[in-house]
Amino acid sequence: MTDRGGSQTKVVNAASADAKTPRTERGRRTLRKLLDASAVEFGEKGFHEASVSSITRRAGVALGSFYTYFDSKDALFRALVADMSENVKSSARSALAPDMTALEIERAALAAFLDFAREHKEIYRIIDEAEFVDPESYRTHYETIAERIRMRLEAGSASGEFRAGLGELEAWAVMGMNVFVGLRYAVWADKGEARPSDEIASAVNALLAKGIARRK
Amino acid sequence: MTDRGGSQTKVVNAASADAKTPRTERGRRTLRKLLDASAVEFGEKGFHEASVSSITRRAGVALGSFYTYFDSKDALFRALVADMSENVKSSARSALAPDMTALEIERAALAAFLDFAREHKEIYRIIDEAEFVDPESYRTHYETIAERIRMRLEAGSASGEFRAGLGELEAWAVMGMNVFVGLRYAVWADKGEARPSDEIASAVNALLAKGIARRK
Repeated sequence: MTDRGGSQTKVVNAASADAKTPRTERGRRTLRKLLDASAVEFGEKGFHEASVSSITRRAGVALGSFYTYFDSKDALFRALVADMSENVKSSARSALAPDMTALEIERAALAAFLDFAREHKEIYRIIDEAEFVDPESYRTHYETIAERIRMRLEAGSASGEFRAGLGELEAWAVMGMNVFVGLRYAVWADKGEARPSDEIASAVNALLAKGIARRK
Repeated sequence: MTDRGGSQTKVVNAASADAKTPRTERGRRTLRKLLDASAVEFGEKGFHEASVSSITRRAGVALGSFYTYFDSKDALFRALVADMSENVKSSARSALAPDMTALEIERAALAAFLDFAREHKEIYRIIDEAEFVDPESYRTHYETIAERIRMRLEAGSASGEFRAGLGELEAWAVMGMNVFVGLRYAVWADKGEARPSDEIASAVNALLAKGIARRK
């Protein structure tokens, strides 16, 4: 398989555990359509009510093509969770610039996540439903994100920008902040109160940088 | 109805929206048994597989008694979510002492929550399933907790212990930290790595107090 970068690579990475790998560009597009249609279907109906025939209809793909790539609705769901994890990661990564400080990286990653969650509100419902449909995917999703944050925090400690001793516990705390701020301000934002992602990310970043205690 | 305080009050508060109010002490005990048994049943099997007959069997209560208090499995589930919200609140409250600083209150509330979550690991699964079974209960659960944290943060700002300007956004961030640290260290703690709740709460409290930036 030739790695041609960009979106093709993303599809292949994301779905590799549960989808058969397409060998052609057309196949990659079909797989992408199925994943996108399944996000809408699972997000609207939930896993149990969702159906393969409705997903292929949404995707404009023949039912037979579905089984070229997935063995079952379960396999598609697992591939979708992995795909969403991958998309969260790549959306954060694409917001980063080489000259950012460690703190700016946290702010930019959160702002990108908030934008992503506004565009794909179904991500919360799908990831949360994974706790019941496929607990291992659920746990892997969060463990993978926490591990990435831990590495960033430790790099910041090592460079002297962050205080020493940051690790896994702080990474889970940071992830929790980001997830719940996203739930409140990206997914549950009432109409007319849409605060820009940058503004929210900056407020969370200030909390992360200096905490809440008044400096004496 | 005479408010006789203590656990009776808790049952009545917690279940008032969806359970009929028991008029006798024996009735309150029956209602408590049904809520406790349902927590185990919903935690183990999930909402859809759980059954009223299995819950009454676990509770050692006659099936007819169930319908004295609840109209349906749905009503019991909603009452259980409200009961868990109430128990989270009262476990945090019982850990507080009058002479605590605002920061100590956050630490003690988190330590109490971690102890509670270790004892009642099913709480995560039940609250998370509410997102699908009864979205309004799910949202109310988190909005209520965030509102309590917001009031504590604003009190800390007002007294000058915390910096000015803390509000709803910081409250959701703090709630997210606590929820995800609880998920990792209370619910998903691997055997042999059980860190004491106090130690975890202190590390989160340090993050909350001073953030992660190195002080210059």
